Amino acid sequence: MQDDLLLHDLDQDGILRLTLNDPRRRNALSEAMLGRLGAALAGAAADPAVRVIVLAANGPAFCAGHDLKELTAGRAAPDRGRAYFARVMAQCSGVMQAIVTCPRPVIAEIAGVATAAGCQLVASCDLAIAAEGATFSTPGVHIGLFCSTPMVALSRNVAPKHAMEMLLTGDMTPAARAAEIGLVNRVVPADRLTATVMEMARRIASKSTLTLATGKSAFYAQREMTLAQAYDHASAVMVENMLARDAEEGIGAFIEKRPPQWQDA
Amino acid sequence: MQDDLLLHDLDQDGILRLTLNDPRRRNALSEAMLGRLGAALAGAAADPAVRVIVLAANGPAFCAGHDLKELTAGRAAPDRGRAYFARVMAQCSGVMQAIVTCPRPVIAEIAGVATAAGCQLVASCDLAIAAEGATFSTPGVHIGLFCSTPMVALSRNVAPKHAMEMLLTGDMTPAARAAEIGLVNRVVPADRLTATVMEMARRIASKSTLTLATGKSAFYAQREMTLAQAYDHASAVMVENMLARDAEEGIGAFIEKRPPQWQDA
Amino acid sequence: MQDDLLLHDLDQDGILRLTLNDPRRRNALSEAMLGRLGAALAGAAADPAVRVIVLAANGPAFCAGHDLKELTAGRAAPDRGRAYFARVMAQCSGVMQAIVTCPRPVIAEIAGVATAAGCQLVASCDLAIAAEGATFSTPGVHIGLFCSTPMVALSRNVAPKHAMEMLLTGDMTPAARAAEIGLVNRVVPADRLTATVMEMARRIASKSTLTLATGKSAFYAQREMTLAQAYDHASAVMVENMLARDAEEGIGAFIEKRPPQWQDA
Repeated sequence: MQDDLLLHDLDQDGILRLTLNDPRRRNALSEAMLGRLGAALAGAAADPAVRVIVLAANGPAFCAGHDLKELTAGRAAPDRGRAYFARVMAQCSGVMQAIVTCPRPVIAEIAGVATAAGCQLVASCDLAIAAEGATFSTPGVHIGLFCSTPMVALSRNVAPKHAMEMLLTGDMTPAARAAEIGLVNRVVPADRLTATVMEMARRIASKSTLTLATGKSAFYAQREMTLAQAYDHASAVMVENMLARDAEEGIGAFIEKRPPQWQDA
Repeated sequence: MQDDLLLHDLDQDGILRLTLNDPRRRNALSEAMLGRLGAALAGAAADPAVRVIVLAANGPAFCAGHDLKELTAGRAAPDRGRAYFARVMAQCSGVMQAIVTCPRPVIAEIAGVATAAGCQLVASCDLAIAAEGATFSTPGVHIGLFCSTPMVALSRNVAPKHAMEMLLTGDMTPAARAAEIGLVNRVVPADRLTATVMEMARRIASKSTLTLATGKSAFYAQREMTLAQAYDHASAVMVENMLARDAEEGIGAFIEKRPPQWQDA
Repeated sequence: MQDDLLLHDLDQDGILRLTLNDPRRRNALSEAMLGRLGAALAGAAADPAVRVIVLAANGPAFCAGHDLKELTAGRAAPDRGRAYFARVMAQCSGVMQAIVTCPRPVIAEIAGVATAAGCQLVASCDLAIAAEGATFSTPGVHIGLFCSTPMVALSRNVAPKHAMEMLLTGDMTPAARAAEIGLVNRVVPADRLTATVMEMARRIASKSTLTLATGKSAFYAQREMTLAQAYDHASAVMVENMLARDAEEGIGAFIEKRPPQWQDA
């Protein structure tokens, strides 16, 4: 399946590469792009052939955030855009949360600039690998529009003073600094970016998708609980995971020193 | 306006420097000092001429925390100081929270030692820049009084094992380590400290104060919410921000490639 | 008191060394081992002679997590192990939380590999010091059993992308990287590990145990509160701490420039 705005490429290892492909508009999260991303995530969640998702981009910008011209055009409505802005923010926040609730691990592959909601996209992914030249920013303060929704994801990734520096100054954070503060997992030379991401994706794709889905879901659920609640929840998850076919197979294979054969269900 | 304990200096860029000025008592947070700080923050929050606050200090100590002699004198009361201690803790916690709720960004400028509630002051600011010789500690364990209120701010800035090391050992953390763990944003040579802080303050002061106030308030509010609640809240904030005059001006100026003229309201 | 599985050594400074001593099974957290650990923590909490706990291990593995053969044997039950797995998970989560609720500071001393629930043990301790060759991993995905309970502790120690990388890949994290991400406090050469840990333990043991217990308990309680609630709680804790004998002694000794004599109650 191909698409002008968002390219789909599912390989034989179950790795779905979604490539933002609107370089002329710096891969802005237009309504159309958000629609394609939402649909792709929903499709991947329902497709047993998809084991891991990589989110990449064509062109020098990974993603420049919302489409400001599109947003501005919304001001022409009688309510000055209120209903439209609410709809776009709900759509965008929905896509970001769909990354989090998607049962497949999602890896961001960032070669260029990731700005505003583009930076939020990176922060929302489970993992992120950046090329050496990549940069990250939440520059809304420059245009009078604080990056309040990007900060939801950003502030759940990095320490508050690091988040506040990005948000209050709008300054660009280079890739190496983004790795230091925890916004990305690691930085590699640009010519090794895709290979590094795909190698990590392949290793994750070799695991049981049932196990990955179980764990990813539990990760984000328990984060919002007290320690005691989190242990109750995670313990119940462990019991169900132990009783699933793939854990019986995996543990058996480990004890018998043979490779496991996942059933994935 | 000048004050013996706390110096005020508001420059033409809207940067209010508040300088702790009790070097003889290592800028201890006496009742008087807490009173001045609280009043200064309340005044700055209400004064449209103030765009950014810098919190600095005169003398070799940034701030040594509570005034132990003053606290000890409180023991003479019939209740052994209970009511007095409760009042001082409430006052101090109120000042720390007033930094967080103040609509203006607050930057700590730390040249010397920041100890106990002085370290808490740094942790409570939105941003912090330290000179190379600055040190940070929560040494209450040395005197039988665990730094329990400082730890509220500290543990919201740094990872738990880093916070626990400072709290359980009372050891000093040098500036470079404080930057590594996220307690300060960066470290600069002492002779460039004020220039670095003021340059950052000026850049932030050039933004719309309405936008900064909107974003700062949303930052601390959404931190205490679940992801879904945080997105609902931040999305609503974004809609109001989009409808405000400064975002219309800022986005218009960006599209038209001209500098924005903030109305700040 | 000696024990085959878990060695106890209480020295004259009040430092209780608990040493996992089942190297043949890589110090797996078998039911028996969990039972000994739980009993040792309960005993230490009730013993005024114990001031600090060090958790160490004999053999090349610090701890390899659950005993997979023991778990697998549980599958023979008519319910395929459901009740047994639930019991083991509750027991293990109870021991991890007993470290957190133990009034004594607990320092992990890690010389080898800490895997799955062994990594969780490290994450659950208040402090952790690792030898240069130590490694950390949550490799459950390799065997179809996501490290969902270890992730409760892990995700409260390190940034989410770092936790997710460990959980989704199962890869080993070397000691130096574990220090960078906040999973351990510091890394030292293997031949200096015990000396470094014991030196830190001795310094903490020289403090008032009442003060340490007060602060440790408040630390974990306030972490789960909003900022305002946390300040109310910590302020109340400070008032009681001020009124306790050890704070009066400690502050008095500080003002009089003499060493304090703790009463510890």
